[in-house]
Amino acid sequence: MQSKPFIPARPVYITAAGSVAGSKEKRGPLGDLFDFCGDDRFGKETWEKAEAEMQRLALGIVLRKSELIDSEIDLLFAGDLVNQCLSSAFGLLDYRIPHLGLFGACSTCAEGMLLGAMAAGCAVRRAAVVTSSHFCTAERQFRMPVEYGGQRAPTAQWTATGAGAFLLSSGIRDAVRCEGEFVPRITELFPGCTVDRGITDASNMGAAMAPAAADTISRYAAGGGSLSDAAIVTGDLGAEGSGILVDLLRAEGIDIGENHTDCGLMLFDPETEDVHAGASGCGCSALVMAASILSDMRKGTVGDVLFVGTGALTNAMAACQGQSIPGVAHLVRISPVSKQELKEAGGN
Amino acid sequence: MQSKPFIPARPVYITAAGSVAGSKEKRGPLGDLFDFCGDDRFGKETWEKAEAEMQRLALGIVLRKSELIDSEIDLLFAGDLVNQCLSSAFGLLDYRIPHLGLFGACSTCAEGMLLGAMAAGCAVRRAAVVTSSHFCTAERQFRMPVEYGGQRAPTAQWTATGAGAFLLSSGIRDAVRCEGEFVPRITELFPGCTVDRGITDASNMGAAMAPAAADTISRYAAGGGSLSDAAIVTGDLGAEGSGILVDLLRAEGIDIGENHTDCGLMLFDPETEDVHAGASGCGCSALVMAASILSDMRKGTVGDVLFVGTGALTNAMAACQGQSIPGVAHLVRISPVSKQELKEAGGN
Repeated sequence: MQSKPFIPARPVYITAAGSVAGSKEKRGPLGDLFDFCGDDRFGKETWEKAEAEMQRLALGIVLRKSELIDSEIDLLFAGDLVNQCLSSAFGLLDYRIPHLGLFGACSTCAEGMLLGAMAAGCAVRRAAVVTSSHFCTAERQFRMPVEYGGQRAPTAQWTATGAGAFLLSSGIRDAVRCEGEFVPRITELFPGCTVDRGITDASNMGAAMAPAAADTISRYAAGGGSLSDAAIVTGDLGAEGSGILVDLLRAEGIDIGENHTDCGLMLFDPETEDVHAGASGCGCSALVMAASILSDMRKGTVGDVLFVGTGALTNAMAACQGQSIPGVAHLVRISPVSKQELKEAGGN
Repeated sequence: MQSKPFIPARPVYITAAGSVAGSKEKRGPLGDLFDFCGDDRFGKETWEKAEAEMQRLALGIVLRKSELIDSEIDLLFAGDLVNQCLSSAFGLLDYRIPHLGLFGACSTCAEGMLLGAMAAGCAVRRAAVVTSSHFCTAERQFRMPVEYGGQRAPTAQWTATGAGAFLLSSGIRDAVRCEGEFVPRITELFPGCTVDRGITDASNMGAAMAPAAADTISRYAAGGGSLSDAAIVTGDLGAEGSGILVDLLRAEGIDIGENHTDCGLMLFDPETEDVHAGASGCGCSALVMAASILSDMRKGTVGDVLFVGTGALTNAMAACQGQSIPGVAHLVRISPVSKQELKEAGGN
């Protein structure tokens, strides 16, 4: 296991992002920032088809913003929470792009960025990353029938309804053409190990994932990665998991309190939407990164970001068998590069 | 979408492989070639834990053969058919190696090799690929309770019980140290698009996957890839899918008849074990590649191989909703390199 972060072999820029969200997300603090919001059914007769449709729309938005067609993209990295990742399989069928399926639970967005950036070393010019989640598909698959309206525990997180898509390009011309004064560039990759601390409470994913996030962040720091000059954005630990992460790192002498935010705490306003411990799901960090963090980075109001995608690895059968819930967390450093700098470097 | 195959940025060798199989597989034609065979329970109280245990054992065998410990491996690429890929999550927990979860159904073994080889361009020195399937976990998850003993259709394939692990290394010293006169080297990568031809019969995965395999192989040929000088090894189309693949390609003027074999047709002897259309599952192609094809390549009795992993993207909910079954197929070219050649190139 390499102790230092991996560095993309060629510069990799996130040249466009698209976000598609549900109605509850539309009412949240980021509601006005999403590219498209729907009524949670998105014109389809099942929740599963609705989730697939969000992926289709999100990638379509990215292609439109980039003025590209599908044949100009080399690879798709996609995944979701639905069994066998079918939201990605069905949602992206319309696009003729080679499809590499990922499963990292809620860390899938970060995992896709990490692998997309690695692929640039192998002459992949442009890769797209697409992830999604839907409250209703996740609820009935992992927990209860949606109609049942079961009472939720205080530590439970609310699965976000939404999809995010990102275009990764190693082309400096793509980077110069994209929106904003600054271009987000993926500068470091630090994949995480699975970590199991014996959590068995399916209503407390934050506690299951926080040890994995702490493991990744402390290994990153030990390998020379810098924590002090970047915002640490985890996704999605929620209130419970964020507190545990801060405590676990403090016990190792690492204080991230000031620098840390969590995507699960940014999607809903606790004053108006009580979702208990916050939001979660592959769509949550994708929405927050696409609509808020990367958008702010393009404007120059956000500097370096350590995006730490966190996933809880569980299913309904494992819960019935009393299995614990391992977590995993992948770190991607994203740094703003000014357009001016790119133009001087030869992009025009 | 690039029309030409991607080439690993640095040479990538498959320096070791490990195979762990169940009792029915042990009785098949490759039975004596597996590194370890068990009684399908592998000492565990559930089928799911047994499948995870096979992954743990398979990677352990690869580490032992390579005389390496987990901390000397940079990345794990792992996946399986169990919901949320939990066989990989639990099976590989003992190893402290960054874990990237994949879902490509039965194409996962090829997908892992493809991504592992791409990662070499990003200073990843060694990556492991691990996949598995288990008849009982798959049967009860996708079809019927195992005890039900439902009658199977003639086109149905039998999910293999087994796990395969592979060590990919870009180090010439690792390559020179490994077993055999020849070292398998990954020379071309050609990821596949999802293809949906409207198949809805969950007992005919071969028909669902064959169009994806045909699409990948014909695009590979159109992009300059050579089919005539390599054995085309699909995994796992079975008898039904293999016939469809040959016909589909013939209609495009491509004749692979002589060159084609399928992992699903190699695991069981139809004379003694009637599994209808053959074997399938993430474990099937992993077992055949690890115990037979790559082993023969090391001895010099097999030349270039186009390993075309095929996956059917479906789940129980989609079947109930009447959804079709898209397929996907990823191609990896593996070529033998003689030890002599490697030594002359500086490995000692």
